[in-house]
Amino acid sequence: MKYSAIPTAQSIVLHCLAKNISNIVISPGSRNAPLTIAFAENPFFTCYSIVDERCAAFFALGMAQQLQEPVVILCTSGSALLNYYPAVAEAYFSNIPLLVISADRPVYKLGIGDGQTINQRNVFENHIRYSANLKQDVSHATAKVLQYRPEWISGREIIDVQQEVQNFNDGELNLALEIALTTNTPVHINIPFEEPLYETLSEPTISPQISAIPFEIDHVVNLGKYREIWKTSTRKLVLVGVNMPNVITAALLEKLAHDPSVLVLTETTSNMHHPNFFNSIDSLIAPIEMHAEKELEFEKLKPEVLITFGGLIVSKKVKAFLRDHAPEHHWHVDGQFANNTFFCLEEHIKVSVNDFFSEMYSAEAVLKSDYYSHWNLVKRNYEHKRRQYLQEIPFSDFLTFQHILAAVPNNYMLQLANSSTIRYTQLFNVNPTLKVFCNRGTSGIDGSTSTAIGASVVGSSPTLFITGDLSFFYDSNALWNNYLKPNFRIIVINNNGGGIFRILPGKENSDVFETYFETRHSLSAEHLCAMYGLNYRTARSSEELEEELRDFFKETMCPQLLEITTPALKNDKILIDYFRFIS
Amino acid sequence: MKYSAIPTAQSIVLHCLAKNISNIVISPGSRNAPLTIAFAENPFFTCYSIVDERCAAFFALGMAQQLQEPVVILCTSGSALLNYYPAVAEAYFSNIPLLVISADRPVYKLGIGDGQTINQRNVFENHIRYSANLKQDVSHATAKVLQYRPEWISGREIIDVQQEVQNFNDGELNLALEIALTTNTPVHINIPFEEPLYETLSEPTISPQISAIPFEIDHVVNLGKYREIWKTSTRKLVLVGVNMPNVITAALLEKLAHDPSVLVLTETTSNMHHPNFFNSIDSLIAPIEMHAEKELEFEKLKPEVLITFGGLIVSKKVKAFLRDHAPEHHWHVDGQFANNTFFCLEEHIKVSVNDFFSEMYSAEAVLKSDYYSHWNLVKRNYEHKRRQYLQEIPFSDFLTFQHILAAVPNNYMLQLANSSTIRYTQLFNVNPTLKVFCNRGTSGIDGSTSTAIGASVVGSSPTLFITGDLSFFYDSNALWNNYLKPNFRIIVINNNGGGIFRILPGKENSDVFETYFETRHSLSAEHLCAMYGLNYRTARSSEELEEELRDFFKETMCPQLLEITTPALKNDKILIDYFRFIS
Repeated sequence: MKYSAIPTAQSIVLHCLAKNISNIVISPGSRNAPLTIAFAENPFFTCYSIVDERCAAFFALGMAQQLQEPVVILCTSGSALLNYYPAVAEAYFSNIPLLVISADRPVYKLGIGDGQTINQRNVFENHIRYSANLKQDVSHATAKVLQYRPEWISGREIIDVQQEVQNFNDGELNLALEIALTTNTPVHINIPFEEPLYETLSEPTISPQISAIPFEIDHVVNLGKYREIWKTSTRKLVLVGVNMPNVITAALLEKLAHDPSVLVLTETTSNMHHPNFFNSIDSLIAPIEMHAEKELEFEKLKPEVLITFGGLIVSKKVKAFLRDHAPEHHWHVDGQFANNTFFCLEEHIKVSVNDFFSEMYSAEAVLKSDYYSHWNLVKRNYEHKRRQYLQEIPFSDFLTFQHILAAVPNNYMLQLANSSTIRYTQLFNVNPTLKVFCNRGTSGIDGSTSTAIGASVVGSSPTLFITGDLSFFYDSNALWNNYLKPNFRIIVINNNGGGIFRILPGKENSDVFETYFETRHSLSAEHLCAMYGLNYRTARSSEELEEELRDFFKETMCPQLLEITTPALKNDKILIDYFRFIS
Repeated sequence: MKYSAIPTAQSIVLHCLAKNISNIVISPGSRNAPLTIAFAENPFFTCYSIVDERCAAFFALGMAQQLQEPVVILCTSGSALLNYYPAVAEAYFSNIPLLVISADRPVYKLGIGDGQTINQRNVFENHIRYSANLKQDVSHATAKVLQYRPEWISGREIIDVQQEVQNFNDGELNLALEIALTTNTPVHINIPFEEPLYETLSEPTISPQISAIPFEIDHVVNLGKYREIWKTSTRKLVLVGVNMPNVITAALLEKLAHDPSVLVLTETTSNMHHPNFFNSIDSLIAPIEMHAEKELEFEKLKPEVLITFGGLIVSKKVKAFLRDHAPEHHWHVDGQFANNTFFCLEEHIKVSVNDFFSEMYSAEAVLKSDYYSHWNLVKRNYEHKRRQYLQEIPFSDFLTFQHILAAVPNNYMLQLANSSTIRYTQLFNVNPTLKVFCNRGTSGIDGSTSTAIGASVVGSSPTLFITGDLSFFYDSNALWNNYLKPNFRIIVINNNGGGIFRILPGKENSDVFETYFETRHSLSAEHLCAMYGLNYRTARSSEELEEELRDFFKETMCPQLLEITTPALKNDKILIDYFRFIS
C-alpha cells in the first residue's frame, strides 16, 4: 500500500475510507497526482479513469444515482474542473451526492498568470451544497518560500503551523463528507498541492480526526392535523416525481390504489406501479385541454388536497393544470427538500413517505367519493384509443417506442435521455419490473449517455439506454472508457435533428428553423460504434425494428447499439394527432 | 426582416447592431428562440449553429481571438450555459471578448423545480468581467401573473412598468457591451424570457437608448523615470508572452534586436521574430540547470531590468529562473492588465508597447554591454547541437515536429493544442511568416480543436492545427458543424496517451501510471474522419511522414487530417536526452 507523502492527500483518503466512500472517478492530470496515487494504490477503493471531465462527472453521477451514496470525481487544476459543472448542477437539482475533489495550485501561485491556474474556490457557488477550501500543507517548498520569499505569500492565507492546517482541513472534510452523506447533494473540496507531487510513503504520517456528526437531524412532525384533512377530503391527488424503486411499501401502495378518493399520478421516472395508477399524465390532461367544456373538466379533476413526493416532474401539462387550478392544500412530503412547483405549497412535511401515508391510513375511514371511479373511466377510454391509434400510424418515433418498450426484457434498468425520449416513454405503460432513470434535475442533453454507462457499471441488472440523436452525439465521448459492459445496450432514435423542436407551438418551417432549432444533420452512430467497439445494428421500418429487437437483448461479447432512423417530417404530426385521437 | 415580438430581444439585437458586433454562434434551444430568430433573420448578422455548447464557445473564442472583437455565444436555459464555462475561463485569462448571452426562465419560475432551470445569474462570477442580469419584460403573460397570481412573483424583482424595464436593460447592455469592446474580456448577459417565444414583427417596437461611453480611459504615464533606468542598465531582458502578430513596429524590433544590452526572449505564441531573438527559451535555460556552476551561470543571465509584455508565458523554466533570481526591476507594459508572474513586479506601465519602447529609444544612448553577445554565443552553440541531435534521433514526437514545421507553407495560421504540442513547438525556430496561436489562458485540452476551427473560419490564410491524441479526442465534437473549410488541416500526433505525463519528474512506470496518468488507449482518428467528412491520412515513420507532408497542404475538396503514430515509450527519453545533448 502506498500513501502520498503530502499530509492532506493522506487525510482525504483516510476520511473517505473511514466513511466508506469507495468509488473514485479520476481524470488524468499532474496536480492531482497525490490523490490519484493515494486512491489508486489503496485496494479499498475502486477507481475509474475517464479523460473528458464532463463525461467523468456524469459517469460518477450515474453510479451515485444507483448506489445512493457519494462517488468521488477527482481532477487536476485549471479548466478541467469547469467541465464538471453540468453534472454538478444535475446532481444539485436531482439530490445526488457527488463528491467533487479538485487539486489546485499553491495559493501563492494563484492570480499571477501561472499555467492551468484558475479561480477554483467556490466556483460552483450557484449549484453546490458546500464548498470546502482546504489549506495548503506546510511542505518543504512552502516552508522555503515562507523563509526566503515571504513577499510571495503575504496576505495569502498560508498557515505556517502544520497542525493548524490539519485541524482546519479535518474540520472541513468532516463537514463536507457528512453533508454529502446525509443530504445526498454535491459538495466540492478544493485542495492546493505544492510540488513534489509524486512522492509516496508506505504508511501514513498523520492520523486525521474523523468524526461523524450527522449534518441534519430528523424532524418530529405532528401529522394529526394533516390526517384530519385527509380523512374528510373526497378528492386527493397524489403526484409522484422522480423516485428510486420501492420507496413505498406494498401495503401502502394497495391502500392508495384502492382509495376511491385518491388519484395517483405517476411518471415513468416515479418507479411506482399499480394498474389503478395513472401513468400517462399527458394522455389524461391533453384531452381536457381540447375539451369544449375545458374549465368544467379541469374543475372536476382539481383536487382538494395535492400531495407530492419525489423529485422533479416531467409533465408540463400537469404543471400548467395545477398552477391554474390551485388545490386548497398542497403538501410536499420529503425528509429534506420541497419545491413550490405549483405556486401553492402549503406545507413541506419533513417525514418519510411511508411514515406519512401510514399515518393517513392509521384508522380505516369509510369515505365515499367517485373521484377515482370517474377518472378511471376516462383512463380506460384513452388507453383503448391509444391501442387503436398505435395500430393505425406509420413508422415514426411514436411507434418506435411502442416496439421498444414491448421488447425490453424484465428487470432491465432503463436509462432515458432528454427530452423527446423521456416524453415519448411517458405516453406508454412501462413494464413494471423495469427501473427507470433520467437526468431531470436540469433536463440537459449533455450527459445522458455517460450517466447511463456509469449507472450500468454498478447496477445489478442489464441496462438499456434510449436516446435521441442530438443527445447521443452531444455526449459521444461517453463511449471513451473501458467500462462498457457486454450487456449494455443503446438505442439511438435518429430523426436527423432535434425532433422536439418540431413539436413546439409557434415555430415555422424555414431555413432558420432547420438550421438553428432542429439543427438538421445526416450523422449516423455507425462510425462511433466502430471506433469504440460496439456492435452496430440499424432499423428503418417497423419490420426491420421488430426483427432487430428479437435478438438485440441476447447475450453478446460486446455492447450493442441499435440506430433507428425515423422520418423527421412526420413525427411531430403523429404525436399531435395522438392527443386529438384520444380526445 | 423579422424582429422578435419581445422588447428585450429586439433591444439586444439593436445594441449589437449599433456596436458592430456581427458574429453570433447559436446553440439550439427553445428559450433562446426570441434571440435566435432576431439574429438569424437579420442580414447584418453572420450566424453559426453549433449544438455542443462547449464546442460552440471555443469556436467563438477562436473567432474572437482572430477578429479581436466580441463574438456572441447564445444558448437556451439550463445546463447548456454551464458547458460554456471552460471557454469563458479561457477567454477571461487570455483577454478575448466573448459575449455570452443566456436565455433564462421567467423569474417567478426559478427555484421552484421547473425543467431546464438552474441558477444562471452571475454563474461565471469567478471568471467574468461583468454579469448583466436583465429584467423581464412586462409581457401579457407576466401581466396576467401580476394581476391574477401576485403571490407567484412576490419578492421576485418583477418591474411592472415596461419603460423602467427597458431603461434598466439598456443601461446594463450599454455597460456590458462597452466592457467587452474596451477591455477584451468576456461578459455575461442573462435574460429571462416569458412565453410565447416565437412571435415576430416586421419592425421593432422599441428604440433602445444606445450609448458608447468608453469603459476605461487612457492613462497618462510619465515614462521618464523608466528611461533613466533603461539608459544605464547593461542587462535588460525583454520577455514576450502571447501576442498578436505585428504589435510592435519593425523599427523598434530592429532597435531591440541590435541593442547589446538587451536580450529578447520570445515564445512561439509571441508572434515576434528576429534572428537575434531567443525563441527557444528552454534550450537556453535547461543547459544552465544542468551546469556544474549553475548559480554562477544564472547570475550571468539575470537581468537588472525585466520588461514583459503580452499574455501568459509558456516556459516553466524561465518562470522558475526569474522567480529564483529576481531582477532589480520588473515592469509589465500593457494598457490594461499585469500579472505578478515572477513575484517581483515593480511597475505596471499602462501604455502601449510601441509607446514604451519609442520612449526608451528616444535618444540614442551608447551603452557598452556584452549581455547579448555572451548569450548569443550560447545560443549558436545549442542551435548547432540541436541540428546535430535531430539528425541522430529515431522517429519520435520530437523529430515529428521538425518534419512538420519544415513543411508548413508560408503565411499559414498555426493553431496549437495543449500541452505537449505547444511545448515541443517551442523548441524549434518557427517560420516567421506563420501566425501562431494556442489557448494559454487556462492551458486546457478541452477546446483546442474548436478554437482552431473557429479561428480558421474568419482567418484569411489557411490553417494548420497540430494536436496530441488526448486533446483531439477530448474535443472530437469540434468537428460536428458545417464550418470546416477545405483548406483546414489537422495533424494528430498520436502516442496513444498523455505523453506529457511521461516527461514529468517523479512518476514511475506502473499500471497506475498507465491507467490514471498516461491513460493509454488504442484509438485512431480514422473513424471520426469518416464520420465528419475529412480525408484521413496516416504516417508511422519519418519516410511516411515526409511522403505525406509533400502533398498534405495542396488544395483539396475537403479538409484533411494526418495522424502520426509515434512510439510512446521512446518519446520521453528522446526529449530529456535533448536537453542533456545541448548542455
